[in-house]
Amino acid sequence: MNLEQIISSIKQKKSYLCVGLDTDINKIPKHLLKTADPVFEFNKIIIDATKDLVIAYKPNLAFYESLGAKGIESLRKTIEYIPNNIFKIADAKRGDIGNSSKYYAEAIFKTLNYDSITVSPYMGEDSIQPFCEYSDKGVFILCLTSNSGSSNFQNKKIGDKELYLHVSELAVTMNVNNNIGLVVGATQNNQMEFIKNYSADLPWLIPGVGFQGGSLEDSIVIGSKNSSTPIINISRGIIYAGNGTIDDIRIATEDYTKKIRNIL
Amino acid sequence: MNLEQIISSIKQKKSYLCVGLDTDINKIPKHLLKTADPVFEFNKIIIDATKDLVIAYKPNLAFYESLGAKGIESLRKTIEYIPNNIFKIADAKRGDIGNSSKYYAEAIFKTLNYDSITVSPYMGEDSIQPFCEYSDKGVFILCLTSNSGSSNFQNKKIGDKELYLHVSELAVTMNVNNNIGLVVGATQNNQMEFIKNYSADLPWLIPGVGFQGGSLEDSIVIGSKNSSTPIINISRGIIYAGNGTIDDIRIATEDYTKKIRNIL
Repeated sequence: MNLEQIISSIKQKKSYLCVGLDTDINKIPKHLLKTADPVFEFNKIIIDATKDLVIAYKPNLAFYESLGAKGIESLRKTIEYIPNNIFKIADAKRGDIGNSSKYYAEAIFKTLNYDSITVSPYMGEDSIQPFCEYSDKGVFILCLTSNSGSSNFQNKKIGDKELYLHVSELAVTMNVNNNIGLVVGATQNNQMEFIKNYSADLPWLIPGVGFQGGSLEDSIVIGSKNSSTPIINISRGIIYAGNGTIDDIRIATEDYTKKIRNIL
Repeated sequence: MNLEQIISSIKQKKSYLCVGLDTDINKIPKHLLKTADPVFEFNKIIIDATKDLVIAYKPNLAFYESLGAKGIESLRKTIEYIPNNIFKIADAKRGDIGNSSKYYAEAIFKTLNYDSITVSPYMGEDSIQPFCEYSDKGVFILCLTSNSGSSNFQNKKIGDKELYLHVSELAVTMNVNNNIGLVVGATQNNQMEFIKNYSADLPWLIPGVGFQGGSLEDSIVIGSKNSSTPIINISRGIIYAGNGTIDDIRIATEDYTKKIRNIL
């Protein structure tokens, strides 16, 4: 599945919702710990309870890597379990010299078979390029992130505009394969209009709604401008909703879906 | 092993040499492909041929991740095989919101048991902090990297100085546990003196000598100023030296050791 196909999936499901599979083995229901692969079993429950309502799943690799080789195997099985018509984003924030980025791209796109990845722009164009060469895969470049540390460097001015706007500009320039997007934190709603001026029609992956308190309305309204596509990620607000029952997960997903449709 | 212990190891071995275990399964001797774990077998050969001369090993995780769970297992076995008195650097260039970075730190420092990690500063202080909280582990923050993409953002001016100098400053401020270092590319020798003005006595991890053509002499001479410690990484120039025989690897390692001692 590529970035163009996700747009038709959005129209069909009337939703922008992506569920972040940030599965922490310490937070999943205790009875699953007796199974051979508790993380995968938990992900299956989440996927079964949400797949008709969501357009994408986004596992953050940190949680899987903390379990070593076994965690990578859970990650691989999870991807196999997600239906083909749902977009799969590896939230990995990778970026290295070209020769190493080439192997990271292989890890995510070939070995794990994800549809897209998040990458960090600090090392510049040649660190991002090897990911973009997979024209049927998506590459979301960190632009303005949702955390407090975004104020250390990202929103500092270089010449007439902030670093994150320079990142947006480079992303637009590099988008010859029509497969680049940006990561824009929902907590940064005051900056979203500025980013729109420099990000053309690039789709945005938007974390930070939910637990981090970012604005869902601004994320959708501003994220949709320039005929663009916002992908709204909710992690903890869905996968650990209520008391962690399937019903609680379903209710939280329906609730976010309703909120999104009301804004549309 | 922590950053302070590596300094006594440097004095004892009269060397700053780190070998980059960037093991590409397509480049290792063909007869190893018949073994159960070719990547680990190749790393064992490299380690056996070099361990008396080097102070650190640095696997770049991209190469291991491209092989999936099996690669992570090779990485884990490699770390177990490296003698205790040699420093182990996971070249991972990680960085995420605090809650996720916490899990990356766990992955590298606990699950894989590495002594240190490289991290990317784009997401700022709270993305780096969870790594630094492991006071007995080292954290090398990307400052000015060896690749051409370093000119996209790193060497752009914010106020009176370049982004990479702001990163150096933050690193010094955060170094309350005395466990932070910087990554400075050997190809950036013209900027090294500037970085020294902002990096106090932080040790530098210096890639880019060898295949990338950076200056070994400047890396050592400038990297040693302020009573600091340069760690000189060579990857392809050693592990794929000559025709790939053990003798070729040994000769290349002795050759770099001799060059380093001549500069000292």
